Amino acid sequence: MQRRTIFFVSDQTGVTAETMGHSLLTQFDGVVFRQVTLPFISTADKAEEAVRRINATGETEGIRPVIFSTLVQEEMREIVKGANGLFLDFFAAFLNPLEEELNIKSSRTQGKAHGMLDIGAYTLRINATNFALANDDGAITRDYEQADLILVGVSRSGKTPTCLYMALQYGIFAANFPLADEEFESGKLSNTLMKHHRKLYGLTIASERLQQIRKERRPNTRYASPTQVEFEVRTAEALFRRFQIPYLDTTERSIEEIASRILDATGLERRLRP
Amino acid sequence: MQRRTIFFVSDQTGVTAETMGHSLLTQFDGVVFRQVTLPFISTADKAEEAVRRINATGETEGIRPVIFSTLVQEEMREIVKGANGLFLDFFAAFLNPLEEELNIKSSRTQGKAHGMLDIGAYTLRINATNFALANDDGAITRDYEQADLILVGVSRSGKTPTCLYMALQYGIFAANFPLADEEFESGKLSNTLMKHHRKLYGLTIASERLQQIRKERRPNTRYASPTQVEFEVRTAEALFRRFQIPYLDTTERSIEEIASRILDATGLERRLRP
Repeated sequence: MQRRTIFFVSDQTGVTAETMGHSLLTQFDGVVFRQVTLPFISTADKAEEAVRRINATGETEGIRPVIFSTLVQEEMREIVKGANGLFLDFFAAFLNPLEEELNIKSSRTQGKAHGMLDIGAYTLRINATNFALANDDGAITRDYEQADLILVGVSRSGKTPTCLYMALQYGIFAANFPLADEEFESGKLSNTLMKHHRKLYGLTIASERLQQIRKERRPNTRYASPTQVEFEVRTAEALFRRFQIPYLDTTERSIEEIASRILDATGLERRLRP
Repeated sequence: MQRRTIFFVSDQTGVTAETMGHSLLTQFDGVVFRQVTLPFISTADKAEEAVRRINATGETEGIRPVIFSTLVQEEMREIVKGANGLFLDFFAAFLNPLEEELNIKSSRTQGKAHGMLDIGAYTLRINATNFALANDDGAITRDYEQADLILVGVSRSGKTPTCLYMALQYGIFAANFPLADEEFESGKLSNTLMKHHRKLYGLTIASERLQQIRKERRPNTRYASPTQVEFEVRTAEALFRRFQIPYLDTTERSIEEIASRILDATGLERRLRP
């Protein structure tokens, strides 16, 4: 099997280079990629050190590496471009056509994307994250007025990570409420939930998968038994339908996809963008 | 001021398109961008609907929009390319050179990046997130054996969001422990912390900024008073130096940057990549 080392080189965090690289690399089955991030390459010294590292890797492995660059500053780009590897230059590919289209020169300064701090955005993310933490698992419900979204579903259907991801990625205030015996037995949702009916969004999951997750967590319990898991999933879905709560099956989905699908389905506005 | 609408079009979540778009757009000061994500464009019908929406926006605004595309499937790309806008095609720019370099055809299938579920990666993220939640704020310390990293710092120095981000983004098991009166008065760290000394990483923050954050949270308290805040920050930094704990000032940094700098400084391996 072919092996190849991939370098993500950035004058900032490298998150953009990693994200774009990941999207591309997943298109190639049958290649094993070793991924190395070289962030904060913001001086000529560091750029030269990066070149040495890339070249040494190529020599050791007998095949030149691939370099995903989001370097913005001309000087550093020119240096790293000189490394012995395939240089894929994010800014060269898109910045020039964008400059022409907007009829304006780009600032070409480093660190605009994830580096320089936008205090407003930072505070929003922190507040949204704190909101998700405080309103996790039905802990409190008095802040639902403030919530953008309230996820409901059985235990381990994916509510908590989805809320946290939406907070960190989009600044969305998401609470979550676990459906449990009280709801299953009464066939009802609490007044608090019904009052915020328009904010409710359901998560469900295949019984087999949920059982597997719960078994890892608490083996040999009622909580993880096939009968209980099936009962909970079936009853939760019946509640979603009865109360007309839109819902999504999380079984085959990544957290990114769950979050994107909820935003798409609800029309909820992102409060900030990654 | 120039205004322009940007569409992120993807057959999956649009996260890659948004991330790359954001990196580019931040290079243009003096333009107000309205950003619209059109995810899950996976059929010809949806692609044609996207084109109608893009064209209608262009007509209303009297200027053609910019389209960042991470569409993979040829058919959908051809349709959306026909819209009246600047079409920036992520895959066309990078997939072909990568195919040549690797001497292998890409699968060109949609949904590889954030769509199709890698159960192992999913479980890892969830477990890392649960670990961060369970080990937040010094709540428990018995799991430190399992931790990749233990962040220490005063209250509101950025520990919790950094731990959660590292869990969700990189699958890293990060705990955090708040420095408080006990440590300040004794000038020591607990045995549990010292036992895991190699995993410790400090976060600090400028007193003025910290005071502002705490004031918003609990106005008119000792917790938010300038004297107390200054004392805590100064004492925490002295502890970091005394016990040779590497540390980072989070004041002017985004969560992405804090996380990347910690990874870079510690050499900690990412357990997964976004």
